[in-house]
Amino acid sequence: MKNIAVLLSGCGVYDGAEIHESVLTLLALSKAGANYQCFAPDVEQMHVVNHLNGEINAAETRNVLQESARICRGEVLNVQSLDITEYDGLIVPGGFGAAKNLCDFAVAGSGSTVEPSVEAFIQEFALVKKPIGFMCIAPVMIPSIFKTNPIGTIGNDSGTAQAFTEMGGEHRDATVEDIIVDTHNNIVSTPAYMLANSIAEANVGIEKLVAKVLEMT
Amino acid sequence: MKNIAVLLSGCGVYDGAEIHESVLTLLALSKAGANYQCFAPDVEQMHVVNHLNGEINAAETRNVLQESARICRGEVLNVQSLDITEYDGLIVPGGFGAAKNLCDFAVAGSGSTVEPSVEAFIQEFALVKKPIGFMCIAPVMIPSIFKTNPIGTIGNDSGTAQAFTEMGGEHRDATVEDIIVDTHNNIVSTPAYMLANSIAEANVGIEKLVAKVLEMT
Repeated sequence: MKNIAVLLSGCGVYDGAEIHESVLTLLALSKAGANYQCFAPDVEQMHVVNHLNGEINAAETRNVLQESARICRGEVLNVQSLDITEYDGLIVPGGFGAAKNLCDFAVAGSGSTVEPSVEAFIQEFALVKKPIGFMCIAPVMIPSIFKTNPIGTIGNDSGTAQAFTEMGGEHRDATVEDIIVDTHNNIVSTPAYMLANSIAEANVGIEKLVAKVLEMT
Repeated sequence: MKNIAVLLSGCGVYDGAEIHESVLTLLALSKAGANYQCFAPDVEQMHVVNHLNGEINAAETRNVLQESARICRGEVLNVQSLDITEYDGLIVPGGFGAAKNLCDFAVAGSGSTVEPSVEAFIQEFALVKKPIGFMCIAPVMIPSIFKTNPIGTIGNDSGTAQAFTEMGGEHRDATVEDIIVDTHNNIVSTPAYMLANSIAEANVGIEKLVAKVLEMT
C-alpha cells in the first residue's frame, strides 16, 4: 500500500491549512487505496484570525501542530519525526497557513524563506526525487526547495506568478481543473482555491493532483 | 437550485464539528448541484480540547460560531438569523461538538437537552416537515426534537442506542454504509465516524444521506 505524507499548516483558510483542500486530499488518497500520514511543524501560528469577521485576534496564540491535529482527528506527527523511508510521496494543501506558517510569503513576497523544520522536511522528499504535490498558494515554496528551474502554478494571479518567477521558478498559468507537472523535479501543482468558486470545482484539480502524485511514486 | 442548511458545532472532532463529515457533506451537496449555507450557534464551546494529546485546555475558550466559520471559509450564519422559507432541508454533521455544544448529551446522557437557539433552529425545519439529516452522534438530538416515535441510528453502540431509546426514540442498528430513513418525520441518519475506519468509508454513508435529503425536499 502506498503511503503518502500530507503537510498541514494549521486549521482554517485565513491562518492555517485550507480545510476543504486538506480533507479532499485525504479523501482522494483513501478512495485510491493509499495510506496517509499528516505532518505539521511544532511552531506558533503567525497569528490567529477570527474567521467570522476576518479580524486578527492579537491576544491569542495557537500552535500549528495542535491545530493541524483537528483536521486529521488527532493523528498528526511533528515534521521533525519524519522517517523518509516510510513514505512514497508528499502533498501540501494550501490556505494562508502555507504562506504564513510554513513560509513567510504572505509578508515577504519574493524574498520569502521556508520555516527551517518545514524546509528540512520537504527537502528529504526532494533529495530522493519522491513526488510532491503542492496546491493553492503552497507552490510559492517550490523555488526555495528546488534549484533546477522548477515549474509550477498558482493559477493566474499575475502578482503571485511574478513573485514565483523572481524566486527562480517557471510559472505556468492554469485553470482550476488543471494540474501542472514538472517531470524533471517530480512536482505537481494545482490552483484549487486560488481559483475555485465551489468545493466541487476545487475537488476536480485536487483529485487529479492526488492521482498524479500516486502515479509518480 | 435546492438550498440546504448545514448546522455546525465548532471545528474539530473532540470539541466541535467533525471536520471530515462536515466537508464531505458540503462536497456531496456541491457535486449534486445544490447550494448550501452553514449555520452555528453563537455560544461558547463546552471546552477546548488539544487535538494533539486529547487534553482539555481549561484556560482557553472558543466561540462555536467563530470556529465553525473555519470549516466554511467564513461563510457561516448565526442560527438565530434563519429565514426558513429560503431552505429546503437541513443536515447536521457529528463530532463531539454536536453532543457538547449543540446539546449536552456528552455530560447528561439520556437526560440531555438541546441548546435553546439550536432547538428553535431545528424545530423550524421539523415543524414544516422539511427533511433533516443527522450523522454520527448528532442523532441523539432527534428524540428531543421529534415527539412522534422518531426513528434513527447512531450505529451499533449499545449504551448510546439505549439512551436514544430512553429519550423516546426508536433506534435501528446500522453499518457505516447504511442510512436509516424515518419517512413519517422526514429524518435520515447515518453512523459516519461512529463506525467508520477511514474517510472513504465515512463518505459512503454521507453521500447516501445527502442524496436522500435532497430527494426528500
